[in-house]
Parts: sequence; C-alpha cells; structure tokens
Amino acid sequence: MPTAFNCPLPVTKHETVQMAHGAGGRLSRELTERIFMPRLQNPVLAALDDQAKLHLDSGDIAFTTDTFVVTPFFFPGGTIGDLAVNGTVNDLAVGGAIPRYLGAGFVIEEGFSLKDLETIVQSIASSAEKAGVQIVAGDTKVVQNGQCDGIFINTSGIGTLRPDAAVSCAGLAAGDVVILSGTLGDHGMAVMTAREGLSFSAGIVSDTAALNGLIAAVLDEVPGVRAMRDPTRGGLAATLNEWAEASGKGIAIDEAAIPVRDDVRGACELLGIDPLNVANEGKVVLAVPRAHADAVLRTMREHADGSGREAVAIGEVVEDHPGTVVMRNVLGSRRIVEMPLGEQLPRIC
Amino acid sequence: MPTAFNCPLPVTKHETVQMAHGAGGRLSRELTERIFMPRLQNPVLAALDDQAKLHLDSGDIAFTTDTFVVTPFFFPGGTIGDLAVNGTVNDLAVGGAIPRYLGAGFVIEEGFSLKDLETIVQSIASSAEKAGVQIVAGDTKVVQNGQCDGIFINTSGIGTLRPDAAVSCAGLAAGDVVILSGTLGDHGMAVMTAREGLSFSAGIVSDTAALNGLIAAVLDEVPGVRAMRDPTRGGLAATLNEWAEASGKGIAIDEAAIPVRDDVRGACELLGIDPLNVANEGKVVLAVPRAHADAVLRTMREHADGSGREAVAIGEVVEDHPGTVVMRNVLGSRRIVEMPLGEQLPRIC
Repeated sequence: MPTAFNCPLPVTKHETVQMAHGAGGRLSRELTERIFMPRLQNPVLAALDDQAKLHLDSGDIAFTTDTFVVTPFFFPGGTIGDLAVNGTVNDLAVGGAIPRYLGAGFVIEEGFSLKDLETIVQSIASSAEKAGVQIVAGDTKVVQNGQCDGIFINTSGIGTLRPDAAVSCAGLAAGDVVILSGTLGDHGMAVMTAREGLSFSAGIVSDTAALNGLIAAVLDEVPGVRAMRDPTRGGLAATLNEWAEASGKGIAIDEAAIPVRDDVRGACELLGIDPLNVANEGKVVLAVPRAHADAVLRTMREHADGSGREAVAIGEVVEDHPGTVVMRNVLGSRRIVEMPLGEQLPRIC
Repeated sequence: MPTAFNCPLPVTKHETVQMAHGAGGRLSRELTERIFMPRLQNPVLAALDDQAKLHLDSGDIAFTTDTFVVTPFFFPGGTIGDLAVNGTVNDLAVGGAIPRYLGAGFVIEEGFSLKDLETIVQSIASSAEKAGVQIVAGDTKVVQNGQCDGIFINTSGIGTLRPDAAVSCAGLAAGDVVILSGTLGDHGMAVMTAREGLSFSAGIVSDTAALNGLIAAVLDEVPGVRAMRDPTRGGLAATLNEWAEASGKGIAIDEAAIPVRDDVRGACELLGIDPLNVANEGKVVLAVPRAHADAVLRTMREHADGSGREAVAIGEVVEDHPGTVVMRNVLGSRRIVEMPLGEQLPRIC
C-alpha cells in the first residue's frame, strides 16, 4: 500500500469547528487526535482519562485558574494560547511555586477555523515547552455560532511550593524597595494596536512571557524577597494598591524611574489611558528588603533569557500615607495613584 | 451609630454585571467581596492571592478541568453551578481520587443579572459543601453583551489519589460485570425539558450529584474495582465504547436491565434520541470482577446518600467482538451500540 495513503488519523471533511466536535463522541475524539494530541503530547495526557494522575515530590502546592478572552486571538508578539500558558505559569511563580502542570479548558464558537485552532494549540505547546510545564488535562466545549466570540481558554495550574519562598504582600515593611522587571504597558497597547489598527504604533509588541525562570533565579540567589506579583489586569496601579491595602503601608513611586516605551506612551496618550493601569503579561514587580535590592537587580538584569534586562527600582514602601500609593512626577509634585475603577481596555487578556 | 448602617461592604448601584466588574480594579474587588467571598468563604480563598497555597498529605494527586456551558443556567434539579462542582468532583472520584480543592473560572456576559449570579454562586457553595471540597481559586472575566451567552463556568479540581485505586479501563477482563448506579438520561432530558418547554415531561429532574461518597464506599468495601466512569457527554454509549476500545475487549449489555424512567424514555422517543447517548451528571458505571459484583451492588444500594439505590448489573465484558459494544434487546436480538458521532443535545453540560 502506498505510504501516502497510510494516514493513521481519520480524514475529516471539515475546515471549521462543528457543534459535534464538542459533544463527546467520534468528532470530539477526532478533534483531540488531530489537533490537540500531536502538539501537546505527553504520557499523562496520552492516557485520555477524565483526570490526570500526577506524582509530585511534595503535597505542598500552589494552584491557580485564569480564563483568557483576549481579542484578537493573534496580536503582535503572541496569541491567546501564549497568554493562557504564560499567565498561569506566572501566577504560580509569583506565589513562590515551581510551575509544573497545566489544564486547559476551551470554549469554541461553532464555525471557528480549525487552522486558527491549530495555530493556537501550537502556541500553547511552544509556550508550555519554554516554561517547562506540561499540559496534562483538557476539555473542549463548542457553542453555537453567536454564543461566544471565537474562543475562550481557561488554564488552571499546579506548581510545587519552594520551601524558601513564603512571599506575601501582607508582610511589606517600610524601607523595602519596589523593583519592576521592565517596561510597562506593552501587552495592553499591542492588543489595542491590533484591534484598533493604530498604524503609528505598529511596532508595539506584547511582552507575554513566562517569568518562572527569572523568578527562580532571584529566589535562588537572594534571600528575603517580600512580595512578587505580575501586574496584569489593572496594571501596576492595581498591584501596588493591593499591596498597600494588604500591608497597611504606603508605597511611594517615582514616575521618572518607571520605564515606558515611547510608542506605548504615545498610544496611551492618544487613547487617554494611564500606562500604570495597562495590563502587562511578562513583567514582575517585587518588594525586597533594601539590603538585598542591588543583588536582586543584578540577578534580574543578568538573567539569561533577557526577561529582567531592564529591571529597575521604581520606589519604596513607606510608613507615610498607609494604604495609599503616591507617585512623584518629574516636576517633583506628588499625586495619588488610584486603584483603577474598572474597564479601560476590555478583553485585553 | 445604628447598626443598620454599619455595612462593611461598598454599596453598589448596579443590578447587572458591568464590563468593569471584570477589569481587575475596584468593581472587580466589589464583585469578589459582595458575591463570591461571603458564599465560598474559606481561609485559602480569603487570602485573595493569585494562587492558592495548599498542603496535601501526599504529592500523588489527580487533576482535571471541565467547562460548563449549559443553557438554561437553571433547570429542574440544579444550576450550572451545581453541574460545575459535581462534574469536576466526579471526574476526580472516578479516577480513584478523593476530591479536595476546586478552582472556578467565570466568563460572564455584560448585563448578566447579579441576582442570578448570586444564585449560581450559592449553588456552587452548597454543592461544594455537600461534596466536601473547597473552592480555593477563582477568576472572573466579563465580555461585552453578545460575546458570550450569559455565563460559562470552568472548574478545575485536585484530589489526592487513593493508594488502593489504580483503576484504568485498559485493564478490563472478560467476565467483569458492568454495573450502573441508576437511571439513564435524567440530566439531559431535564435540560431539554426546561429549554424546549416539553410540558408532558415536566416531572423530569436532573440527576446532578457528587458521587465521591458512593465511590469511596465501594472502594472501601470491595477490592479490585477495574474501571469507573461517569457517563456524561456522549452518555453510556460513549463510555462503554471507550472502554471497549481501550481494553480491546467486547462489552455486552442487556437493554432490559438498563433503568430509564418512563418520562425520560418518552421524551427521548419524542426527540428521536437514544437514552444511551444522553448525558448523565450523577451516575457512575463500574466494571468489577464477577466475584465482587454482588458486594459492589449491595454497597451501592445501601449507601446512605441514596445515590446508588437503583444500582444494577447491566452487562459484562466479553472476549467476543473485541472493541465493540453490543446490546441485546428485549426480543433477544442484538445490535451494535455505536460511539455517538456528535451533538444530539448541544450545551447540555
């Protein structure tokens, strides 16, 4: 028999997702075998059971869940699949965990292009490989045309807790230095650029990236990291306000120290958006005791994957104005950085 | 100060979900504090971190994820919230795990009633309490009106693996008895009744229930359970076909032995649907060595919560017709039970 006809998979006549692809029957199997398994392959997933059986070194774990509804699904610098992996990896890493396993739950609109789905699943596979995690559980639901906007992806994740990393923003102390790993606003503005067709800002690229390598390097090298967070929805403003509230301390930051790319700043000004409120998907904010700040900055800037190259101290924890974040601008005047009220940029992640 | 004015929560002027409720800012916090926290309260969730830190007895765990898109959200016998908890609890339990912790990811359409959301979150809380699991991680995304159909809920779950329960459908052996815990088709037909307004079948109620208690009782009492599965999407037909394929054995079932409520059978006939293909949300199918079948049936029928009261042997594993499920009907003739092709009942779970 000519090998060209020797295809192990059922040949499908569909180019788009059908309702039956989500029904648990033969077409569901076909979707799994044609789209998901070849790209996400690993022994746990290959068992195709309704649950993954995992053997971790310890029962001390971190667990998180996040749903991604970004539109468009493809944007400069990444896809909804990259975000779904990196976002959950980062939520584990900032909790002092080593990310290990992810589950992925898809809601797909009938008629969605199978080619686009392949691209998204491939981006999930690539991002998972880069981050050193495995996709071990999955689920696909299909809803009728018009009942969801293309594709939504939930990822849940499990990591093993590092014994040395009991980080909690409630423990911030006056004098702690606040460190940011790089420029603000790239992800949010990259998505807005793709969505709104802002041609002048065509060079803006999402920062979506897994930060577990960078964070592990810091925790390996420097003791006493007080708090870590990836400033996604609500941006740096939301993260710092949550820290101030949880710790009962004030946080003072310096506008001139906060790195924002010129084109990102321009796009923010045009759209009337404060870069402090914009979602980032590959940045981490840390609070560290002053004695260790230089070591943290050095470790981040020298980290091999480049994700901390532009790390910088942007402020400090203070006894003044408890529960409040205050920013000194370039002219020396001070303003309160408010918790963002709500949605300036819908469906950004 | 009169205590009536002593409300610790911000008063909101909204009666429906706003885009800003999903933006990670103040309204997100309000949604969390007003709707989610009071109902799902537990110390892990109360930390409001981006990840739950859990301390399990062992690192041998089961992990699963499932998204629920059922419409309508409220149906006879339950809500989308009950399904989301019980479905994930059951996926863990049938893998031989003790369900412990769930994460919940919500995608909500702008304009969704906050009162309905409260009812759904309350049903999640009640079902979780009944099943003995805690909701320890959560996420909410809001999409614009028309970009999702009301509410979708993903639940992911973690359970600790029982050392005695190395169940796998690949291990079925000829002579094993196939046991079903009760009537087929109740959930699917209850949702169809609610959706289509089939007045003659108004008495049909979803079987949504957590099966971890029943399954633990069986595993505690009887050794050697070979395989367990909750026959949800694709129904009993899909479960048995997957078992036959994975084990390379045949499965022979007896139509007269399979319990189906009269009104469910009537609704199935009217809609042209085979009850074997209809989703169940509170039933388990087991394959057990013949020597233990009676003990399993007795344990299930006597289980305190009543979920196995109608347990019955419906067939057996055979060497004949490997990979194929065959059903003998009441007249003695035999037909192949096919793997369902696809979607007969969209958005049933």
